Amino acid sequence: MTDTRTPDSTTRDLRVAVIGAGRMGADHIHRLHTRTHGAEVAAVVDVDLDRATAAVADIPGARAFATPAEAYAAGVDAVLLATPGFLHEEALLEALGQDLPILCEKPLTPDVASAWRVVEAEVALGRQRIQVGFMRRYDAEYAALGQTIRSGDLGELLMLHCRHRNPDTPPGFTNEMLINDSVVHEFDVVRYLTGEEITSVAVRLGKASAKAPSGQHDPQHVLIETASGVLADVEIFVNAQFGYEVATEAAFEDGIVDIGRDTGPYVRRAGRWGGSITPSFVERFGAAYDLEVQAWVDAARRGEIGGPSAWDGYATAACCEAGVAAQGSGEKVTVTLNEKPALYAGSGHDRVGAA
Amino acid sequence: MTDTRTPDSTTRDLRVAVIGAGRMGADHIHRLHTRTHGAEVAAVVDVDLDRATAAVADIPGARAFATPAEAYAAGVDAVLLATPGFLHEEALLEALGQDLPILCEKPLTPDVASAWRVVEAEVALGRQRIQVGFMRRYDAEYAALGQTIRSGDLGELLMLHCRHRNPDTPPGFTNEMLINDSVVHEFDVVRYLTGEEITSVAVRLGKASAKAPSGQHDPQHVLIETASGVLADVEIFVNAQFGYEVATEAAFEDGIVDIGRDTGPYVRRAGRWGGSITPSFVERFGAAYDLEVQAWVDAARRGEIGGPSAWDGYATAACCEAGVAAQGSGEKVTVTLNEKPALYAGSGHDRVGAA
Amino acid sequence: MTDTRTPDSTTRDLRVAVIGAGRMGADHIHRLHTRTHGAEVAAVVDVDLDRATAAVADIPGARAFATPAEAYAAGVDAVLLATPGFLHEEALLEALGQDLPILCEKPLTPDVASAWRVVEAEVALGRQRIQVGFMRRYDAEYAALGQTIRSGDLGELLMLHCRHRNPDTPPGFTNEMLINDSVVHEFDVVRYLTGEEITSVAVRLGKASAKAPSGQHDPQHVLIETASGVLADVEIFVNAQFGYEVATEAAFEDGIVDIGRDTGPYVRRAGRWGGSITPSFVERFGAAYDLEVQAWVDAARRGEIGGPSAWDGYATAACCEAGVAAQGSGEKVTVTLNEKPALYAGSGHDRVGAA
Amino acid sequence: MTDTRTPDSTTRDLRVAVIGAGRMGADHIHRLHTRTHGAEVAAVVDVDLDRATAAVADIPGARAFATPAEAYAAGVDAVLLATPGFLHEEALLEALGQDLPILCEKPLTPDVASAWRVVEAEVALGRQRIQVGFMRRYDAEYAALGQTIRSGDLGELLMLHCRHRNPDTPPGFTNEMLINDSVVHEFDVVRYLTGEEITSVAVRLGKASAKAPSGQHDPQHVLIETASGVLADVEIFVNAQFGYEVATEAAFEDGIVDIGRDTGPYVRRAGRWGGSITPSFVERFGAAYDLEVQAWVDAARRGEIGGPSAWDGYATAACCEAGVAAQGSGEKVTVTLNEKPALYAGSGHDRVGAA
Repeated sequence: MTDTRTPDSTTRDLRVAVIGAGRMGADHIHRLHTRTHGAEVAAVVDVDLDRATAAVADIPGARAFATPAEAYAAGVDAVLLATPGFLHEEALLEALGQDLPILCEKPLTPDVASAWRVVEAEVALGRQRIQVGFMRRYDAEYAALGQTIRSGDLGELLMLHCRHRNPDTPPGFTNEMLINDSVVHEFDVVRYLTGEEITSVAVRLGKASAKAPSGQHDPQHVLIETASGVLADVEIFVNAQFGYEVATEAAFEDGIVDIGRDTGPYVRRAGRWGGSITPSFVERFGAAYDLEVQAWVDAARRGEIGGPSAWDGYATAACCEAGVAAQGSGEKVTVTLNEKPALYAGSGHDRVGAA
Repeated sequence: MTDTRTPDSTTRDLRVAVIGAGRMGADHIHRLHTRTHGAEVAAVVDVDLDRATAAVADIPGARAFATPAEAYAAGVDAVLLATPGFLHEEALLEALGQDLPILCEKPLTPDVASAWRVVEAEVALGRQRIQVGFMRRYDAEYAALGQTIRSGDLGELLMLHCRHRNPDTPPGFTNEMLINDSVVHEFDVVRYLTGEEITSVAVRLGKASAKAPSGQHDPQHVLIETASGVLADVEIFVNAQFGYEVATEAAFEDGIVDIGRDTGPYVRRAGRWGGSITPSFVERFGAAYDLEVQAWVDAARRGEIGGPSAWDGYATAACCEAGVAAQGSGEKVTVTLNEKPALYAGSGHDRVGAA
Repeated sequence: MTDTRTPDSTTRDLRVAVIGAGRMGADHIHRLHTRTHGAEVAAVVDVDLDRATAAVADIPGARAFATPAEAYAAGVDAVLLATPGFLHEEALLEALGQDLPILCEKPLTPDVASAWRVVEAEVALGRQRIQVGFMRRYDAEYAALGQTIRSGDLGELLMLHCRHRNPDTPPGFTNEMLINDSVVHEFDVVRYLTGEEITSVAVRLGKASAKAPSGQHDPQHVLIETASGVLADVEIFVNAQFGYEVATEAAFEDGIVDIGRDTGPYVRRAGRWGGSITPSFVERFGAAYDLEVQAWVDAARRGEIGGPSAWDGYATAACCEAGVAAQGSGEKVTVTLNEKPALYAGSGHDRVGAA
Repeated sequence: MTDTRTPDSTTRDLRVAVIGAGRMGADHIHRLHTRTHGAEVAAVVDVDLDRATAAVADIPGARAFATPAEAYAAGVDAVLLATPGFLHEEALLEALGQDLPILCEKPLTPDVASAWRVVEAEVALGRQRIQVGFMRRYDAEYAALGQTIRSGDLGELLMLHCRHRNPDTPPGFTNEMLINDSVVHEFDVVRYLTGEEITSVAVRLGKASAKAPSGQHDPQHVLIETASGVLADVEIFVNAQFGYEVATEAAFEDGIVDIGRDTGPYVRRAGRWGGSITPSFVERFGAAYDLEVQAWVDAARRGEIGGPSAWDGYATAACCEAGVAAQGSGEKVTVTLNEKPALYAGSGHDRVGAA
């Protein structure tokens, strides 16, 4: 099995099994099949075998399976996990058992306890195999902001102001999901940008939009603090109607940097100047997804991982748990983490492996 | 005395006594003498009589005095009060005693108790005579944002994000002054924009800039709440080095509005695109000061006031007191106000007389 | 009459006669009556006496007349000429005969021959009395661009790209008026910015908008050359529908500067980012008109003129004549000027008296 | 040979021979080897065999050759031609002789006569095999502008204003190269955007920068006209010092669209707001090159071409010839084309095959 899992990058494409053929899975299947260099879709796994079969219909050589075990038996080099989060723990443990490189869409798992079990399993394996899908680290502007921070050109980073706005939410989107599915990206970004762990989270509910569905309090105001005292406020507003917007403003000792401003053709028409707003995360972060998957494939062909680790997945799970608690109390909630295993000690504070 | 205080707007300029010939006083003297229509500098009062004398040197007909009483005896129609705040209470009470229209540079007075005494004196007089110098209400972009809010075009206002950045501070600028001299403008703006009173203030200190003088914790993060639950966060950063910036972002149910973005000639040079940052409040709000003084002069010639009232001065003093307390505790501090006197009931929620 | 025309600036406002109470005249009357410091509307002259009478109805002390002579007999200090251009020559010669300071709305006169007669009359009088209403020189961004050019900070100015767009035109607006009423401002701006005379003009008609009225070819492309070879292209587009826009881009040896970009509140709504376009020249250049009139009043009280001279009016008339000829021929047309009289030799290349 | 040249896209990567291992060639080799999906570098050809050998050193399976014939003999599926333009004719005719799909870096050939011979050879072959490297058609903003034009949403396109600025030029860059190497892209863009042929070109030299090397007149002003009368002016400025900028402004009957504005992190520092300017075409059009090559590979695997045709290469060569003539005369020069062969009749006016 050795040559299957550590392919010779010079001779053969990485054979990827995509687990989960829903929205994100289908997007990754298309990416791997048409844009990613050095990889091919070898297998698609879905409990709904018809959906898996449909997903491979136009991909010569790709096969559909109902379980990961069948795909592994057929021979694959790597796993891209795109099922709902509650199915991640089992799938991750099984893939680790195969010693395969894994790109796991966020979250690592939906709660701290299960995230820690995954970390322990990877530590037991003795090598990092899991990369978590925090794709913002691959966005050109976040990367540039991270570079500015690490360069020290503007002095120390002091404060961050984050905006996370969606036009609306799918049915069943709850208050907890505001934290676990949306703010989780801000937790990762704050950790990535500062290179520090988050020490506390506070949430204030404020005035709610009448456009939010019943049971959802939207927008909310989140105030994050890191180990050195950097404060990051987040407006999380998931029924913002006007469009999709993810932006961050960073205050340094010697200057201010904004990222995420709208761009594109600049139009003047009927008394208005401006342009189009990105409609969703697909357009906003499409290039970042491409880069993320390419980086993961390139690293997997070398037997490495190329981005955020299982530790990053675990640490953000702890932030989410604190965030949900803070929604309820209105008070600042402390984030506590287990000691970081030595396996993750080498993760540099760089583009793809913060903290 | 009647015709002195209620000048016939059609025949004669308003004779203004400027009290205080320091930086702000000198600026207002120059404005009244060269740009304001329908007013003239009749008297300059300063305890330092030499400074007052120098201020009137190039203004034919203007006289210098060491005390307001002498100026009033000589005959003036209105008072522009530009002394340090701790001298305001006495000067305001004396001018109210003369029944003169007053433009009082902010703050009304430096603490809640004295501010309330001024309100009581004006209530006893039975007519509004005091306008407070919250000039941002006359800034074109704040005015446009206020108009958008009141129009309901974007639905309800939900959240505000405010930035208040100075390049540096003069010697002796304390933590309390961060609230009393700088955030006070944000308190006024939040009240003006929402048309509501502020109900609580919280302050978090976070990571401090090494560029701040000893004893000052800068920047700070202020979180304001209004009666209906609108949350307004403020980054107050008074040693921000890069330049002066005052900006506000407003999140509505149906859209987002930013004001205070940099403008002016757009230059590309040596690998950089962009332009110049406004160096100080003088350039940023110069036009607003001109409009404020013109509006006050026009109203005074009609026997009215044209802007924020003594009640506005009192209410922001209460916010400042809560803000300073919140700096110490790190907790949310409730703002409580006396009942609003009927005299101020008519103040509409409009450009110049919020709440 | 001496003290009437050279008022002591320290004691009395400049008594202005406004000639012409149409759109521009009414705007200037309102400006002088409510915003200009140191001036008052003493007389309004209009052949339609009813219109003049209506214009002074709310201005105590102002009187209405049917002819300038009556106004002069009643005693005024200065003249603001706002009649249609074809009436300018006679009015200017009459006001020069009174030795009064004159602010003449552009054009000086509608053709080169009459413009030169006005220049000759002023030269015969022996002092500059006429300022022409090229208000763009008082616009903050044009002034900043001019300052950048004169500073040499970006090296030599090499090329200009000008846009002049109106939403639509009033009935009767002809091809010639595109040059004489609209491009005339660009001629002045090019002369002001470069400090040079214009040596040739070419016009290309290109593809026409179906939104232009019958008989008008719109847009047109104008290519201007100055004495040192600076090329300035102009898109003149007077039925541009979307709004009003006047912008200039300047290419220097070491960089590029744009002025006239849209600003104001930045809104995100319904899938679009952006803001409002200025609807007309009134909003775009309102502040410039205020500054122009204030500068003229301040100068007139000192017995001077404060802006573009009769020579500037004559030189732009010559450009217009060449431009109209170039519309017909499609070829480059040379601009020739009489020798500049010594009276105008002292006009510095600065904010208000180029060339 | 059939299966070699029309590979089964489902089973095997396109084996590409890159001819020319200089700057552009090396860039394309790296792209094909690390980012392009479905292609591999099979051969690198360079008269300097050492350079070719170095280029394949890290690419397993790729071989170096001194002549295309050797590469063809070894078996390749497609050709990417990146030699200097004067070598194109011979290489194109040889590759057409092999019936291979070709991506030819611009220009097709350096003069009209040779370009027409290539067209005739392709017509004789009877199928389109040549795509020309006008990569701007793959830039997201040019594509969006093209889409706006074709949609008719803003009415008819009337005028274009183009800027093409380089920081400086390599030694030996001549006046003719300004047209042939730089303005050639504008000729293609104007043809692509309007879907029309260019009918005349005029060039005015104007004031020259002292920063331009001896013998070069820089900047220059080019005025292009299309069949329907659309006028497009171009500022070509290749020693602009400040950075790299390619931008276009389009005036429609109902609005204005700008593309090519600077973006990226927005920084405020030391009294300036703004960001970084793209340093060269590599960063500005890197994504467009990736898309161009991917589109060509995808099309080649289907046996098609995916972009601008040999006819586009011929037509722009005719524009360049007119442009160089116009530099000398200062007059408008007419562009004449041979009748378009039926082979190119089907080229739709779309993203990749204008005119």
